Amino acid sequence: MKLTGIIAYPITPFTADGSQPDLQKLAQSIELLLQNGCDAIAPLGSTGESAYLSFAEWQQVAQHSVQVVAKRIPVIIGISELTTEQAINKARFAAEIGADAIMVIPVSYWKLTDDEIFGYYQAITAEVSLPVMVYNNPATSGVDMSPELIVKMFRGIPQITMVKESTGDIQRMHKIYQLSSGELPFYNGSNPLALEALCAGASGWCTAAPNLLGSLPKELFNQVQAGDLQAAKDNFYRQLPLLNFIVSGGLPKTVKAGLALKGFDVGQPRKPLTAANEQQLATLTRLLNQF
Amino acid sequence: MKLTGIIAYPITPFTADGSQPDLQKLAQSIELLLQNGCDAIAPLGSTGESAYLSFAEWQQVAQHSVQVVAKRIPVIIGISELTTEQAINKARFAAEIGADAIMVIPVSYWKLTDDEIFGYYQAITAEVSLPVMVYNNPATSGVDMSPELIVKMFRGIPQITMVKESTGDIQRMHKIYQLSSGELPFYNGSNPLALEALCAGASGWCTAAPNLLGSLPKELFNQVQAGDLQAAKDNFYRQLPLLNFIVSGGLPKTVKAGLALKGFDVGQPRKPLTAANEQQLATLTRLLNQF
Amino acid sequence: MKLTGIIAYPITPFTADGSQPDLQKLAQSIELLLQNGCDAIAPLGSTGESAYLSFAEWQQVAQHSVQVVAKRIPVIIGISELTTEQAINKARFAAEIGADAIMVIPVSYWKLTDDEIFGYYQAITAEVSLPVMVYNNPATSGVDMSPELIVKMFRGIPQITMVKESTGDIQRMHKIYQLSSGELPFYNGSNPLALEALCAGASGWCTAAPNLLGSLPKELFNQVQAGDLQAAKDNFYRQLPLLNFIVSGGLPKTVKAGLALKGFDVGQPRKPLTAANEQQLATLTRLLNQF
Amino acid sequence: MKLTGIIAYPITPFTADGSQPDLQKLAQSIELLLQNGCDAIAPLGSTGESAYLSFAEWQQVAQHSVQVVAKRIPVIIGISELTTEQAINKARFAAEIGADAIMVIPVSYWKLTDDEIFGYYQAITAEVSLPVMVYNNPATSGVDMSPELIVKMFRGIPQITMVKESTGDIQRMHKIYQLSSGELPFYNGSNPLALEALCAGASGWCTAAPNLLGSLPKELFNQVQAGDLQAAKDNFYRQLPLLNFIVSGGLPKTVKAGLALKGFDVGQPRKPLTAANEQQLATLTRLLNQF
Repeated sequence: MKLTGIIAYPITPFTADGSQPDLQKLAQSIELLLQNGCDAIAPLGSTGESAYLSFAEWQQVAQHSVQVVAKRIPVIIGISELTTEQAINKARFAAEIGADAIMVIPVSYWKLTDDEIFGYYQAITAEVSLPVMVYNNPATSGVDMSPELIVKMFRGIPQITMVKESTGDIQRMHKIYQLSSGELPFYNGSNPLALEALCAGASGWCTAAPNLLGSLPKELFNQVQAGDLQAAKDNFYRQLPLLNFIVSGGLPKTVKAGLALKGFDVGQPRKPLTAANEQQLATLTRLLNQF
Repeated sequence: MKLTGIIAYPITPFTADGSQPDLQKLAQSIELLLQNGCDAIAPLGSTGESAYLSFAEWQQVAQHSVQVVAKRIPVIIGISELTTEQAINKARFAAEIGADAIMVIPVSYWKLTDDEIFGYYQAITAEVSLPVMVYNNPATSGVDMSPELIVKMFRGIPQITMVKESTGDIQRMHKIYQLSSGELPFYNGSNPLALEALCAGASGWCTAAPNLLGSLPKELFNQVQAGDLQAAKDNFYRQLPLLNFIVSGGLPKTVKAGLALKGFDVGQPRKPLTAANEQQLATLTRLLNQF
Repeated sequence: MKLTGIIAYPITPFTADGSQPDLQKLAQSIELLLQNGCDAIAPLGSTGESAYLSFAEWQQVAQHSVQVVAKRIPVIIGISELTTEQAINKARFAAEIGADAIMVIPVSYWKLTDDEIFGYYQAITAEVSLPVMVYNNPATSGVDMSPELIVKMFRGIPQITMVKESTGDIQRMHKIYQLSSGELPFYNGSNPLALEALCAGASGWCTAAPNLLGSLPKELFNQVQAGDLQAAKDNFYRQLPLLNFIVSGGLPKTVKAGLALKGFDVGQPRKPLTAANEQQLATLTRLLNQF
Repeated sequence: MKLTGIIAYPITPFTADGSQPDLQKLAQSIELLLQNGCDAIAPLGSTGESAYLSFAEWQQVAQHSVQVVAKRIPVIIGISELTTEQAINKARFAAEIGADAIMVIPVSYWKLTDDEIFGYYQAITAEVSLPVMVYNNPATSGVDMSPELIVKMFRGIPQITMVKESTGDIQRMHKIYQLSSGELPFYNGSNPLALEALCAGASGWCTAAPNLLGSLPKELFNQVQAGDLQAAKDNFYRQLPLLNFIVSGGLPKTVKAGLALKGFDVGQPRKPLTAANEQQLATLTRLLNQF
């Protein structure tokens, strides 16, 4: 599995009363990402409100996503669980339904030691043979995995073959590159760092931006690959205000609001998260109108 | 409900195979806290691994705790949930089984705005009439509630009558005192701040320390109340090395290890948390031997 | 030298055109602090704009302060220098004019290692036999000395006999107490922490507050000594709004503004520092009117 | 003045006894930088230990630097002063000796408000007509200037025509670019960010690295300009270990040590700074041997 390019994150649409995922709209949302040239689909990530779904709902979304994509491009299922046991349950399910890989982020209530994190990934990979993308995003998960730990796991756990780094600190990527002698593919998970991460050697960009920005993220990837830095820079600075907006406002809330503004109503995020407020909608309208 | 003194946090014992809570040992653990003069029992807090239990397990522990205490002192049930819906489910259950209060901490994956946090507490208190202790502990929950927000909720939601502040920042307590004109009782949730919080006017100390330190925490409370600062200081500095140890090592892990060293085996914490390692056990043995 | 109580910090008054220190007003300012029961005078501290004076001006202020106090209480001269050489020059001068002690804070442009900091204090004490108060205040100096380093210097350099801790982190004081077995007297340099620091065993409170609050700080010290926590708490919470204001606005600016409001014009702080603005003056007026 | 490329920072050599700058070696050091294709010389920056020099020494170094460069490329004189008055004194001197620009960083003891910082630059530019590069480096100066403030000063003070950003946060550069509509040239002052800053549109790289790395920094600049990202990446990752080393060890100490290892003894940094220790020398030797 040599993944490069844009790994796109669908939102999880809900029915109007919020009681359950709307699978038909999920399919539409995924088709939209496919049309925009995305290279992989990652349902049930942070954007997909994975943490706010019941296990049954999570299973529905995972299964339907795999069916919709139907092997056209790889599907990477997100797993973010507090207990090892439940992470394994989800990993098993992902394997059963034919996902291509899993993206796993440990979640903390009590801080985890490096040994505990290592053990968490080891326990999951002992049960399931899928390739694993390690996902580091301390702002949401409460767990911060150092480049040293990540590379150690890459060396010690064969199924770990990719890492998504979302701290927004480019030095982490430098460190992963150096410690792994360039062997561990890293993917940028911080939208406002996309240009620089790609220039620094990121294999791809994990992002929900294509939901609202169409093929611009993929074009940025291509421009950097082609060494056309001037075009890449222009493209990036054009996207940046919207990227900053969706990150600071929270992805599920702002991406759902943006889709609605574009005419595709995918429901609200789960409570206690609320829909975008008036001011956010005004800003978002202004930002979207620039494209 | 005018709560003062020591609000004690039991661990959640598990059976040897870790598969379920050991209710008999839970009862023993609670009796121990009662014997040491604690003024309230708070099951299913951070120490009680609330976040690592299934809903059914959580219900078992809550119900058994209330039965064991049997109105000898108040029982405050801990609720830490990502979704509003599940927080309400737990609050309802706490009310049904006869708990005296609930201690509620919002948990974040996506950051919550102040309005979303206010809405979270409002939704819960709309469904359940129990008194609510707001619990602020950003290190575990990922949500940091400012003194301004806490006092605003105290003014706007009548059931909110207490706040447990666990940031370890004494200035937060000063601010709560000032903003509420001394009307909102605050409780210290940061063990290494116990002496100063009580001197600054905290109504009590929320702590798992009595599990290992017996009546010393209660004596500290009494010494401060009596104005015997020299005795309070000596007592506090005596406890401090152990308090620092259990906080930095994580409460479930270290308190369970300490109880085992004292001859009361309550099982391991839930994975990915692991039992205390050799070095931690050696330190803990040395620290406990000083009492 | 067994210093306890209130170590008071005079401002450095300037002439109307700001060109030089106004020594007559300096004397008045010091007399005011003496009248309010302060236990030591510390000219040329952070409050005294030491860092903004030429060496000649610094010498004037130091010498005049010693003469004015005239051995009624101890004088501790502040030294904050980037280079070891200039710190030694100032220390020698302090010894020559009969100061009782020096308070020394290393200042960084380039970060200093612990060995470099140790060497800095060692070089100074090799040249001058005065007692030294180590002063830790990373917010102004850019150097943060850990409790471990401070206690190591206390053990290794006999002239170091006191430490002023201004990080505002009460745990630092706990640590100094523990690491030195209670032998190294520590003084609180964080105004909004005064109550708690004294309760935790601080030997005194280093503060500019008596310039505006008269004898209230000294009374707080006495109340804590007497174990009258209720009175101490009332007194502290009464002072706290003003303490927070002068700290967040910057001591030279706010204390000078407060003295002017009380009818004692001591000039402006040195540029680029400016005088308090309209809004600050309004707040300060309101705060001072409460006493 | 349309400056692009490498702005190189010479160290300030001292005589063997450390008592004064060694002007002959300073000249040699500058010639070395010129030979390596640097586009401007910036004496008396952080690397040049500006903050550790007496005014007379500072004047010597400034004057000699201008004479040695002799208009072959621009000379930008560094000014880092606590008081506005002394900053003006230095700016005047820079103008008198024929410097091409000044690089000005405000230094704090007491935190400065945005208005005070604006006033600082305004007061300097009112006295001297040289172009000004605003230099932001909170880690050394204690002053953090936001992109908003920097662009406001660029709009309000005509002589401010460049900014050196050294926080290491690429988002600051994005913000400066956006707020100034790409009109304010920014230069990267964080060595480990060089690749990304140039890709994001930095006009140049302000660095002491050419002292040890010869023409590699200039080649990196050229490679990015040419869109040869693969070569730029290889070059950057080759330099990175050394860049990280000199930054984390402190530039004057490590660059002086590196020059000595390369056979050019330029003396020690000023106390309390010390020479590189054994371990640092061993690491540095290993790193330099790779070129």
